[in-house]
Amino acid sequence: MTNFTETDFASLAEQALVRCHTLATFTQEPGQLTRLFLSPPMRDVHSQLEGWAAALGLETSIDAAGNWHAVRHSADLEARTLLIASHLDTVPNAGAYDGPLGVVLGLGLLEALGDLAVPYHLHVVGFSEEEGVRFGVPFLGSRALVGTAEPLLELTDAAGVTVRQAIGDYGLDVSALSEARLRGEVLGYLEFHIEQGPVLEADGRALGAVSAVAGQSRFNLAFTGKANHAGTTPMHLRRDALTGAAEFILAAETQARQTPGLVATVGFIEARPGASNVIPGAAHFTLDVRHAEDEVRRRAQTELLETAGRIAAARHLSLKQEVRMEVSATPMDGVLTGLLGEALEAEGHGGSTLVSGAGHDAMVTGTVWPSTMLFVRSPGGISHHPDETVLAEDVEAALRVGVRFLTLLAEREEGR
Amino acid sequence: MTNFTETDFASLAEQALVRCHTLATFTQEPGQLTRLFLSPPMRDVHSQLEGWAAALGLETSIDAAGNWHAVRHSADLEARTLLIASHLDTVPNAGAYDGPLGVVLGLGLLEALGDLAVPYHLHVVGFSEEEGVRFGVPFLGSRALVGTAEPLLELTDAAGVTVRQAIGDYGLDVSALSEARLRGEVLGYLEFHIEQGPVLEADGRALGAVSAVAGQSRFNLAFTGKANHAGTTPMHLRRDALTGAAEFILAAETQARQTPGLVATVGFIEARPGASNVIPGAAHFTLDVRHAEDEVRRRAQTELLETAGRIAAARHLSLKQEVRMEVSATPMDGVLTGLLGEALEAEGHGGSTLVSGAGHDAMVTGTVWPSTMLFVRSPGGISHHPDETVLAEDVEAALRVGVRFLTLLAEREEGR
Repeated sequence: MTNFTETDFASLAEQALVRCHTLATFTQEPGQLTRLFLSPPMRDVHSQLEGWAAALGLETSIDAAGNWHAVRHSADLEARTLLIASHLDTVPNAGAYDGPLGVVLGLGLLEALGDLAVPYHLHVVGFSEEEGVRFGVPFLGSRALVGTAEPLLELTDAAGVTVRQAIGDYGLDVSALSEARLRGEVLGYLEFHIEQGPVLEADGRALGAVSAVAGQSRFNLAFTGKANHAGTTPMHLRRDALTGAAEFILAAETQARQTPGLVATVGFIEARPGASNVIPGAAHFTLDVRHAEDEVRRRAQTELLETAGRIAAARHLSLKQEVRMEVSATPMDGVLTGLLGEALEAEGHGGSTLVSGAGHDAMVTGTVWPSTMLFVRSPGGISHHPDETVLAEDVEAALRVGVRFLTLLAEREEGR
Repeated sequence: MTNFTETDFASLAEQALVRCHTLATFTQEPGQLTRLFLSPPMRDVHSQLEGWAAALGLETSIDAAGNWHAVRHSADLEARTLLIASHLDTVPNAGAYDGPLGVVLGLGLLEALGDLAVPYHLHVVGFSEEEGVRFGVPFLGSRALVGTAEPLLELTDAAGVTVRQAIGDYGLDVSALSEARLRGEVLGYLEFHIEQGPVLEADGRALGAVSAVAGQSRFNLAFTGKANHAGTTPMHLRRDALTGAAEFILAAETQARQTPGLVATVGFIEARPGASNVIPGAAHFTLDVRHAEDEVRRRAQTELLETAGRIAAARHLSLKQEVRMEVSATPMDGVLTGLLGEALEAEGHGGSTLVSGAGHDAMVTGTVWPSTMLFVRSPGGISHHPDETVLAEDVEAALRVGVRFLTLLAEREEGR
């Protein structure tokens, strides 16, 4: 196979960045980038992608869940399919790269391949929904691809519109949803995504293969004590719910610091009644715990909830706890991730794999197909914000590693 | 002098409680007790009080600040005046005793005295305003009595009405405000008030003389770090403003527990942006610090603000602090409070004095006249709530101690 010495990766990277900026102009909110599931600007995204795909001679389509598809068929009759995908929806007031970068890099890789024959079909997908903003549940697009979107059809958005109606309103045929399920033999799923965190930058690395998407649990917790006058109630007669919560917040931080790979966050807190001169009678707060290994996460959260119980007992508070969400960790496919590691090494990138603390479509695809992800460094760790960015040199490196990965994969498929 | 063996203190106490309930029916909000400064139901309170005062042959009046007055003159030409006062306004959704109890106990004491001559004028005042609800500033009534209400005339309430207008609208003559200032020679000020705290109950005491009204400081504090993704940001790369606030909350609690008489309270907290899956980039919270000695309070708050600075430095947060309020402690008059202590002891009540953590009109009167307060036990420490209550036996004890105090004071005045 070719070694791509003639390929101008710098120009391809530049083109990918320009394309992200172009897609970022398609928004439902003037002055910012906000593009939810099946919103009108998604049509502009699709027609723009069509143009770029047409130039590569790709066969394109949109499925009943609004996912955009572009396929490059292999001449090989035995060929299986490699999916390269990411999502096209955004959070409100988003940056330009979270999602779209992975789609335009898919097209960029196909452009880099040129006429080079590979023994697998290449299938680029732009998912219609990943962020979970419009309907409160994420991964609608990838769930359609694996055939598990049906149970979500009656979810409603803030305007009371169901997923079913939204699909119809967009001009798609919801009765064809089951056909969105991919039926060909898939050899693997590859997603390029910005890291959305500070780990690669702190390590001085441009890229990193993802070993797993962390499992996560979210809890609502509440201590209840007794609201009282801040002036007339001596310290020893108080049942202050907020000091209890403060003790818990520090305990969670300490436990996470002492457990490698664990993150624990209290992101929301409310003291009630919330007046400066009233001892808080209640403190409501959230706890978010994540780890790549479910067992570590579960042990940590058990210990933390026990700690909360001890704090409540010691401070004469009552404790309420409610599990809001619990998602198991999704290990990436060892073989594909290993191949990605080889490609990284071959291109001069070292470093260990990293864990994704954020959720990604690879969690869904990983349940049915060998899946892996390549993270691109996020300067400042900034994401879900208009200041989100990537470095051109990192995008170029991602393309080089991608092409190397495709080459290694071609060798492997030929040797089957 | 008489020893009041014939007096039916139990009936007087019962009458005081019934009178509090009667006054509690005069409200501006149906279904709850809410009676702000110069609100319509205050007229009903005044006419009810007129009736009770007329039965005792008292001379009554209403001054330009809406304070109600009832005077029993001494035959003694040299007589000075003893003020017995509390307030007639309430917080929203109030209990029946905070304020009115002190006024009806003043009338009850005059009834207990009967025809007995004392060498001082007795002057019962029902202040028009103490809670600070309508105009955001407390003590309008007692400030008029000491001649410092004038600067507050242009304050506005939620409807944009000024104090000046409110006085006129009620039918009072604001130009006569300076005449509300008491000009006779005042020998002392005595206020009966429910404790509004749990100290007497915890000590198993019915009554307690107040040694001082605590000074208080209130601060707005804010830590700012960096909001980040709760999943993708490892613990060691976080700048979590809320964990910093939690550390401070516990430090404040510890410092207050270790400093006798100090109370420190964080009553309000907000983590921003406040989503369960986002590390708080900012934490805004309040700090309320009180102590009977200004020096102890100031030293404590200096240490706490230094602690906040150390936390900020260690956690790479920035710190903003703003003083919202600073009020010096008001020691009660040593001689009068000593006399109250003698009366308590003579009536079989032991125990040390206590500090009022809440503000009272005695803070205002204490700036010009010897002032003291007698606290009546608050069951459950409950106040500013419809469940606020007092025990009939404690009210009876307060009347007995009050009469004893008036007797001791008469002996002292005769000996001048």
